[in-house]
Amino acid sequence: MTIKIDLRDRLIALTIAELEAGNAEPSLREIARKAGVSAMAPYRHFSDKAALLTAVVIAGFRLLQESLDRADRSAGGREALIAQGLAYIAFARANPALFHLMFAHAEAGDKSNAPHDLSEAEGYGILKRRLVETTGFDEKIAAPGCWALVHGLAILQRDRKLDLTHDEQRQVLDLMTRGLEPTKR
Amino acid sequence: MTIKIDLRDRLIALTIAELEAGNAEPSLREIARKAGVSAMAPYRHFSDKAALLTAVVIAGFRLLQESLDRADRSAGGREALIAQGLAYIAFARANPALFHLMFAHAEAGDKSNAPHDLSEAEGYGILKRRLVETTGFDEKIAAPGCWALVHGLAILQRDRKLDLTHDEQRQVLDLMTRGLEPTKR
Repeated sequence: MTIKIDLRDRLIALTIAELEAGNAEPSLREIARKAGVSAMAPYRHFSDKAALLTAVVIAGFRLLQESLDRADRSAGGREALIAQGLAYIAFARANPALFHLMFAHAEAGDKSNAPHDLSEAEGYGILKRRLVETTGFDEKIAAPGCWALVHGLAILQRDRKLDLTHDEQRQVLDLMTRGLEPTKR
Repeated sequence: MTIKIDLRDRLIALTIAELEAGNAEPSLREIARKAGVSAMAPYRHFSDKAALLTAVVIAGFRLLQESLDRADRSAGGREALIAQGLAYIAFARANPALFHLMFAHAEAGDKSNAPHDLSEAEGYGILKRRLVETTGFDEKIAAPGCWALVHGLAILQRDRKLDLTHDEQRQVLDLMTRGLEPTKR
């Protein structure tokens, strides 16, 4: 029995691997070579590099969502919220280049705008829905609060401004979500 | 009466203005020209561009500290903490290029490491001291929590992932610091 992995998924996975290996601008040609296919083969799936990066960002949000879902199921009440926060930070640490691309700043006039714009609504929608489902709080306030907290912890640790142990991270999330006892679940 | 502004301070202010105008890599020569002094004059104060950027980062943290101090004096108890958070976010929004430089990621092998390394301890020290003085909480947990929250709000709004009104920001900070009633003041 052979497991057939879709070329499209392979190209996305290879692109993520290239990004994490430090190649910030992998070309469709390079990815095709890594996949062992012709230089033209990726064009059956992606019209250009921007389309490939869009797919990478969407795949990244799917991976993050899966990780948050697993964490959410691991505990109940506010513990589920804390577990999700730890999962978010761990995801950012394990996939720094992917995380950077997912949340990259869409500069004015930046041609690579498209992927970010496309995924933005989807990405935030996932996070917001999850946070609101867990806490039951007004999404306009609780969701940005929780997101900013874990995003800040991820960024400050990536940029080596903070260096917290797993237990310290848990204590921070516990302290900062004390006002967020879930109202429904 | 004439007000004599120190050339060193003028060079720093002009560099900040250049950064905010979109010139990410101003040279000492350019800054000298803007100041109307000879190309060699800046070298009386800065040995090279890295030294100038170090001074800019230190000046940035001084400005941020002054802003946090003003906010802290504007209110008491947890309101002072919220006011500081709003001031931090406002500083990041008003000085995006300076804020970026102050918290720039010191890449491995990056020659511009020096300024960041130098200011890092100073910058975090200021923020930590201020947060601890205000809340009286264990600095190992409360300070990273408050910092990550406001840094995350600043970054996600800079990167256009969140767009909160001033009042929504205040509500987020209020909700997320409910567990932080000051124990001393």
